[in-house]
Amino acid sequence: MKLASLKAGGRDGSLVVVDRSLQSYVAVPEIAQTLQQALDDWSRAAPLLNAVSETLNAAGRDDASRLDYTALAAPLPRAFEFVDGSAYLPHVERVRRARGAEVPESFYSDPLMYQATSAGFLGPRDPVHVVSEDYGIDFEAEVVVVTDDVPMAITAGEAAAHVQLIGLINDVSLRNLIPAELAKGFGFLQSKPRSALSPVLVTPDELGPAWRDSVLHLPLRSWLNGRRFGEPEAGLDMQFNFAELVAHAAKTRPLTAGTLVGSGTVANQDESLGASCLAELRMLEIIEHGKPSTPFMSFGDTIRIEMLDHEGATIFGAIEQEIRPYVR
Amino acid sequence: MKLASLKAGGRDGSLVVVDRSLQSYVAVPEIAQTLQQALDDWSRAAPLLNAVSETLNAAGRDDASRLDYTALAAPLPRAFEFVDGSAYLPHVERVRRARGAEVPESFYSDPLMYQATSAGFLGPRDPVHVVSEDYGIDFEAEVVVVTDDVPMAITAGEAAAHVQLIGLINDVSLRNLIPAELAKGFGFLQSKPRSALSPVLVTPDELGPAWRDSVLHLPLRSWLNGRRFGEPEAGLDMQFNFAELVAHAAKTRPLTAGTLVGSGTVANQDESLGASCLAELRMLEIIEHGKPSTPFMSFGDTIRIEMLDHEGATIFGAIEQEIRPYVR
Repeated sequence: MKLASLKAGGRDGSLVVVDRSLQSYVAVPEIAQTLQQALDDWSRAAPLLNAVSETLNAAGRDDASRLDYTALAAPLPRAFEFVDGSAYLPHVERVRRARGAEVPESFYSDPLMYQATSAGFLGPRDPVHVVSEDYGIDFEAEVVVVTDDVPMAITAGEAAAHVQLIGLINDVSLRNLIPAELAKGFGFLQSKPRSALSPVLVTPDELGPAWRDSVLHLPLRSWLNGRRFGEPEAGLDMQFNFAELVAHAAKTRPLTAGTLVGSGTVANQDESLGASCLAELRMLEIIEHGKPSTPFMSFGDTIRIEMLDHEGATIFGAIEQEIRPYVR
Repeated sequence: MKLASLKAGGRDGSLVVVDRSLQSYVAVPEIAQTLQQALDDWSRAAPLLNAVSETLNAAGRDDASRLDYTALAAPLPRAFEFVDGSAYLPHVERVRRARGAEVPESFYSDPLMYQATSAGFLGPRDPVHVVSEDYGIDFEAEVVVVTDDVPMAITAGEAAAHVQLIGLINDVSLRNLIPAELAKGFGFLQSKPRSALSPVLVTPDELGPAWRDSVLHLPLRSWLNGRRFGEPEAGLDMQFNFAELVAHAAKTRPLTAGTLVGSGTVANQDESLGASCLAELRMLEIIEHGKPSTPFMSFGDTIRIEMLDHEGATIFGAIEQEIRPYVR
């Protein structure tokens, strides 16, 4: 099934079930008013939501309405936890290569992951408001999963079954704030503001054979200002699968239902497939020419992130955002 | 007023108003079922909660019940954001001195702060479950504030009025996991598991003159295994006040109502007042004797954290926790 949240209904939006083709939706307040409520009681809610999804996909429903992406909040407008991995090592390797540094051996066995803000996710068509272009505005196209309750110290083998929903995320990054912030040693804070989620999150079964071994095996496509930017294969070069990322996050704490776990910027060894963020393109330019030639994003720039199935149909809908100046 | 949450009622508990002496409480479901609900609509809820508090403190109420600390969840059992500062520079200076490093000049003008887990806070009497004593189990006694909605890019002057509630926090730290985790460059994750909150959070007016200039001017007392461990003055040596910490967190994002902002381990230049965590005591031992003599916490150890007013009465109630082995 595919789930979304309308902006209407309050800070956590209103949960709706969306048909496979993303044309129509059905409100389900009698099952759960919000996606967080459904995840809090997933073993009860999931079969009920799935039954709605099956009738909607089979023959349509009289109570269905036409889906308008601009009326959508993020499927989880607020969440209690978001941890973002950096599982595609080609991305990490290029960052290091551009500054002449080695990748530590441990990076191939111990996932890189940071605690990210979860207090507000932007809707799929919400603009990204930034105070200044000098912050070095960048997108990062990633795959993200949502868990139910995960016990502390679970193994990766056990963690796989806790991935309940899958989607896309634009992990907005303020590149020029990163070096000083990381130099302080406490990780990202100001340099990683709110991210945006795809219009819908889907259950693993919606992905068929494209979801296997806790990895999503399809290209992740992004367009900058309407021009194709990259389409790296998310199924390649993912050093740690989502089960391993979930287990890493849960080593010393349980994960609350509705926790988001991100893949990190999707990147392949094969550079011809393009990148999933400007920083990576700029690093390739540095490696090749000594300095970057592509600027970071400016006000008015747009980013589109989408994943298509083997028939060319959109799976999660597209994230489409414009960068705008923040004015109080 | 003083607010708490009963464990009863679900994942977010049940909001109650507690009398000033922490003897009795009144349930307030007609105002808000949970503290998060109240914070989501604070301008409406706060005056209503305050009216209940005033009648409870003035003459008691027929609908009041006796307060049992063990029935309390954290006042915010789950929150959408927790950012923890490190505003007491003597703590930072000693960490650095113990390893022969300088404190960068920027640390005196730019707050240290990290994105922490907010998905679950332990109740004031909940045990701390840890997989292994080898993790280097430590407490950190801190002051924490809770904000209402804070606009992005607010000034510190504007931020002061967004501090709506104040409490104490035991920021549980797994010291032996920290060096490897920070060396990866992405901040704390596994080394900072769930923290515990004090029995109640209080509004600034409850603190009278002890709350001024966005700093709490009272000693923060901690006892390890029943023995006095430290009582540094929280009003001294706080390099950045809470208004400055809130503004730092909000530089590139709005803060959602119910965001927690921590002070970091309370520490004074005057070492005679003791410390607020074992790591700090061990650093003093390293500076004096070349190596630490006090071990980190073991299973069965207890920590008590409390703040008293000038009459010796408890303000927030005490955090009292035992370290226990985690068994699945």
